[in-house]
Amino acid sequence: MLLDKNMGSIINIGVIGYGYWGPNLVRNFIELPVTKVIMVSDFKTELLSKAQTRYPTIEVTTNYQDILANPQIDAVAIATPVSTHFSLALAALKAGKHVLVEKPMTMTTEQGLRLIEEAERRNLVLMVDHTFVYTGAVQKMRELVANNQLGDIYYYDSVRVNLGLFQHDVNVIWDLAVHDLSIMNYVLQSQPYAVSATGISHIPGEPENIAYLTLFFNHNLIAHIHVNWLAPVKVRRTLIGGNQKMVVFDDLEPSEKLKIYDKGITLNGNPDSNAKEVYQMLIGYRTGDMWSPKLEVTEALRTEALHFVECIKQGKRPITDGSAGLQVVKILEAATLSMKKQGQLVELDKVEVAA
Amino acid sequence: MLLDKNMGSIINIGVIGYGYWGPNLVRNFIELPVTKVIMVSDFKTELLSKAQTRYPTIEVTTNYQDILANPQIDAVAIATPVSTHFSLALAALKAGKHVLVEKPMTMTTEQGLRLIEEAERRNLVLMVDHTFVYTGAVQKMRELVANNQLGDIYYYDSVRVNLGLFQHDVNVIWDLAVHDLSIMNYVLQSQPYAVSATGISHIPGEPENIAYLTLFFNHNLIAHIHVNWLAPVKVRRTLIGGNQKMVVFDDLEPSEKLKIYDKGITLNGNPDSNAKEVYQMLIGYRTGDMWSPKLEVTEALRTEALHFVECIKQGKRPITDGSAGLQVVKILEAATLSMKKQGQLVELDKVEVAA
Amino acid sequence: MLLDKNMGSIINIGVIGYGYWGPNLVRNFIELPVTKVIMVSDFKTELLSKAQTRYPTIEVTTNYQDILANPQIDAVAIATPVSTHFSLALAALKAGKHVLVEKPMTMTTEQGLRLIEEAERRNLVLMVDHTFVYTGAVQKMRELVANNQLGDIYYYDSVRVNLGLFQHDVNVIWDLAVHDLSIMNYVLQSQPYAVSATGISHIPGEPENIAYLTLFFNHNLIAHIHVNWLAPVKVRRTLIGGNQKMVVFDDLEPSEKLKIYDKGITLNGNPDSNAKEVYQMLIGYRTGDMWSPKLEVTEALRTEALHFVECIKQGKRPITDGSAGLQVVKILEAATLSMKKQGQLVELDKVEVAA
Amino acid sequence: MLLDKNMGSIINIGVIGYGYWGPNLVRNFIELPVTKVIMVSDFKTELLSKAQTRYPTIEVTTNYQDILANPQIDAVAIATPVSTHFSLALAALKAGKHVLVEKPMTMTTEQGLRLIEEAERRNLVLMVDHTFVYTGAVQKMRELVANNQLGDIYYYDSVRVNLGLFQHDVNVIWDLAVHDLSIMNYVLQSQPYAVSATGISHIPGEPENIAYLTLFFNHNLIAHIHVNWLAPVKVRRTLIGGNQKMVVFDDLEPSEKLKIYDKGITLNGNPDSNAKEVYQMLIGYRTGDMWSPKLEVTEALRTEALHFVECIKQGKRPITDGSAGLQVVKILEAATLSMKKQGQLVELDKVEVAA
Repeated sequence: MLLDKNMGSIINIGVIGYGYWGPNLVRNFIELPVTKVIMVSDFKTELLSKAQTRYPTIEVTTNYQDILANPQIDAVAIATPVSTHFSLALAALKAGKHVLVEKPMTMTTEQGLRLIEEAERRNLVLMVDHTFVYTGAVQKMRELVANNQLGDIYYYDSVRVNLGLFQHDVNVIWDLAVHDLSIMNYVLQSQPYAVSATGISHIPGEPENIAYLTLFFNHNLIAHIHVNWLAPVKVRRTLIGGNQKMVVFDDLEPSEKLKIYDKGITLNGNPDSNAKEVYQMLIGYRTGDMWSPKLEVTEALRTEALHFVECIKQGKRPITDGSAGLQVVKILEAATLSMKKQGQLVELDKVEVAA
Repeated sequence: MLLDKNMGSIINIGVIGYGYWGPNLVRNFIELPVTKVIMVSDFKTELLSKAQTRYPTIEVTTNYQDILANPQIDAVAIATPVSTHFSLALAALKAGKHVLVEKPMTMTTEQGLRLIEEAERRNLVLMVDHTFVYTGAVQKMRELVANNQLGDIYYYDSVRVNLGLFQHDVNVIWDLAVHDLSIMNYVLQSQPYAVSATGISHIPGEPENIAYLTLFFNHNLIAHIHVNWLAPVKVRRTLIGGNQKMVVFDDLEPSEKLKIYDKGITLNGNPDSNAKEVYQMLIGYRTGDMWSPKLEVTEALRTEALHFVECIKQGKRPITDGSAGLQVVKILEAATLSMKKQGQLVELDKVEVAA
Repeated sequence: MLLDKNMGSIINIGVIGYGYWGPNLVRNFIELPVTKVIMVSDFKTELLSKAQTRYPTIEVTTNYQDILANPQIDAVAIATPVSTHFSLALAALKAGKHVLVEKPMTMTTEQGLRLIEEAERRNLVLMVDHTFVYTGAVQKMRELVANNQLGDIYYYDSVRVNLGLFQHDVNVIWDLAVHDLSIMNYVLQSQPYAVSATGISHIPGEPENIAYLTLFFNHNLIAHIHVNWLAPVKVRRTLIGGNQKMVVFDDLEPSEKLKIYDKGITLNGNPDSNAKEVYQMLIGYRTGDMWSPKLEVTEALRTEALHFVECIKQGKRPITDGSAGLQVVKILEAATLSMKKQGQLVELDKVEVAA
Repeated sequence: MLLDKNMGSIINIGVIGYGYWGPNLVRNFIELPVTKVIMVSDFKTELLSKAQTRYPTIEVTTNYQDILANPQIDAVAIATPVSTHFSLALAALKAGKHVLVEKPMTMTTEQGLRLIEEAERRNLVLMVDHTFVYTGAVQKMRELVANNQLGDIYYYDSVRVNLGLFQHDVNVIWDLAVHDLSIMNYVLQSQPYAVSATGISHIPGEPENIAYLTLFFNHNLIAHIHVNWLAPVKVRRTLIGGNQKMVVFDDLEPSEKLKIYDKGITLNGNPDSNAKEVYQMLIGYRTGDMWSPKLEVTEALRTEALHFVECIKQGKRPITDGSAGLQVVKILEAATLSMKKQGQLVELDKVEVAA
């Protein structure tokens, strides 16, 4: 669905940042038949040596400007710390390159708006690497919601905890909740209007390592995200409750990651009766079969990389475009603010972007 | 530890309410060698028939006053809807009976204080049926914390969700979170100073069926409770994170309900160095063995019933006394208020009870 | 499907044996509207006291002959050690009572044939208490096989292990495998022609406490049963492999006990080609959705008791009749013999019973 | 324990076979500081291209003789189909190379003896790639047994099933049970004296795809292995029952692969009493804590490759030497024979190898 087989000419890629995620980007762009990796930059030379040993034909540089200045290169993938995303992506766009940038897209809403504006003006693709959106499980959840198979959505609840690497520059919301927010926004296609968040830092001088976010939506919907860098067990579990069916997405299951339960409540209240007691007796339960659909197993980053190429070639808007990236950043900003105020509600202004 | 074998004379019990929980109280007080159930009351005669068929020697009545007026009866167990707890417990105390009352103890803090005062004045036992406190798993968690085996406690996180019976008179916090709060208060022996809660009702005119509570403590500790009547799967899981060890309590595990992980972070920062970058490099990880202790498997309600008798006979204060019940009610009240205000922080005043 | 609502007059029941299983029989026959329990016998008076305390209206006796001699009693349920099944069931049939006997039905094939003959001659119902056959999960498995939803059945594999009570009079095959054999025979509706079994006793002087049975069928089907009284964890898991679909039945799952996998191999061999190498390339894999059907949750023993009554009233043959009981006994006998000979194949003669 | 840090000069490696497992061997020998991969051979040129793209400095050839003839090369790793192991390993030994050969070592006992003899005569290392033996979990199980922490071993029970690639040249015993046998032999350090095996092929003309092996030992010990290429779910689970403690090894658990249960039976029989009934009353149960030790997480093949080098340099005998390989082959041969005879016991002659 996302892929187009007749993609014609090769797109030349430069990759900025070869730390944790960069090697995955390089590998996927190398393995695709429609892309070629021309150059990789990183300020650590030992990482560049690693890249060159593995892929002797790729050029390496400690100066990302070499990538921007290379007229051969059509598109740039940015896999550097979040604080550098804005300036690197802006420079790449100004150099006329299409951009695929790691999530979170930027540190602020303002920066996000600026990137979107620059990409629009230059008619370049700006895509955010919300990798999970391209997994078979998330695509299937989107399909279930889009086809109204769950009915009205009541809640979205996600837990992402483990004994994880403490970040020093961003708190656990920016590191982990960013995944859940990008999945949630894509699956629900609905924006929260406000957030209440709580959290704590257990290590003096370090950012918050545990956090809880509640997101308020119109239409009877609530969402909650629990993230923690200091949990004894790894949990990656999302519940989506609809009034027709309910979903459990457990990303640690080797197969059957998605389970759809034909369960819910039934309301058989007599509309003529105003007697509360009578009405109360008529809330019933419904339990039926459970079903676990087969999922697409292509590596998400490969699907995403192909989608990036398709958007470049066909002038299409990516499903994880700048606007999707910005919406996540807005929530991250608001949640961090609410967390500082111990749960006080912070409203999210509507994102103003030309469609 | 809780039990005393030489308990002497028999304590005569009256049970008010024979709906969902009453039969368990009757069964346990009948099976104990130190108690005798004299009378059961309920306003539904079909429930009384059931009681009489099963236990032909017990007297039954639709009027609880018959129990209070019976001079043979030493103690009363109250298993009625929460809205009736205060008036029934107060009447029982005034009639000179020791009282075991279902949780939540009362609907308001004020009512709770009044009951405590009445029991103190009359030198009667007032005990709240926080049943989980008397399970092997909770007793073991208390022991681990008391013996400082987990180190400083960083967080307490609990999830209690399932497709459950909707209550009409109380929200999901009063129905489900009450369990987690009673366990948490007992295990941590520490009081939160404020709560931020969020939640929603999906059924018009009904109380909130999903809720999230964050509890703030002094000393770097945070707690969170997630409760939901509308989940496709049943989850009963608590994580306790300490700086030495961490605990997972999964009450749905048939055995190995408690797992203790020798995991955590290590801080090897050089105190002489103020350089943030240097310090950052020194957060390390530690993972060791996991251990699942054998737990006491006596039915919790039996242990609790024996403790009630022991307190009556020896004039001891129950471990789930009126003060423990009041502390839970205070949090329930504050959480409900915060939830109405979409997460706004609500402070918990110190409970003022004569020790 | 098994039940008939219009059952008319009451069937009077006598229960012989009030040890482990007898109380369940009594409770179910008491709770049914179409049966009444008249008398219970056991040679232990303390067990009879227990029965009488719980059910004051039931007569008790230490002499089972009192039950057989009672003209009021229509049917007898026998829940005594296996060595007594034959003589008690025969006496009951001779006294003109319908019989529901615990599994295994008898100690030998010969005894089983004798009971069937007696019941046929007197036109009485002889039913064996293969309780699992009446569970929702087993009924659903039977339905799947009967409707050919799994395709040709390739294998039936079952594991039933735990730290269990050592029996002194029978080995682990007679205690545990009897369950699997009764389920398997019912689900497959197909008889093995031979068995190879291995096992061992770890306690001198005691019967085998661990055993492995392989059952050979015609038509490309194989079955295996693993039973063990000395396992650190409890396992109750059956796999059924068909060439269209495969089933996992995990009886310890609180819900979703049955999972049906749309998985298998595909054979696309070219019938014109005899070249082995070509053929080999054409074995493919197929994986599709998994589906967990909602199961009937009525207590199996209640369904079974109702079926017993229905058979008595309508002169129907029970689905777990004497012939089903005999088929299981034949396999138990043969497996025990094979086990003594360390796996040597023992053939099962066809059971000769007038249909 | 297995590793020696001071390994001095570099060992030059040739790898024969670059199909499924060869790339893992190449990668590990490349990453070790003490080895260098000189040449890779495979008869498929497309596989050699893959090798060369990834590792441009390695020589490739379609003729394995080039490896044997290369005087630079000290040792050869053989990762080809089992039918070629014997001739390739023999040729390598005759060419004076140390040999690491895939499991199963050979197709027959006779071949295995011949290889052992050749290696002994030439004073060369002959090692079999029983990779699992070098995992943290298996090393820990060996340690538990060696230190007598489980007490007397009662049984070893292993299940290895999934929807797996059908082999055309060997049956499922040679493909899957080989893993369990190599682990079992290493952990127990005890040899079975006979085997009874059953199994079936569901695809005409193809080898058996499901099999069950019972292994008989002296000393009250029994082992059983269940392997299946056609299971809907993946299971990798081993139970080891000792009279003091019991172990569950679940290789699919992401962490906590090993759980040790302090469970068992207690025998308090009165030695003076011969009364069977009295004795019977004295079998009791014991359940205590469960413990899951932290395991070494180094990749097993890396540990193994280092051990191979260590043995070459120090003239040591590998823990998975030719004798260990031969013992496994003997059981595979005997099991296949027993399976053809539907479970008939096949005795295993003592392996005669000069120590």
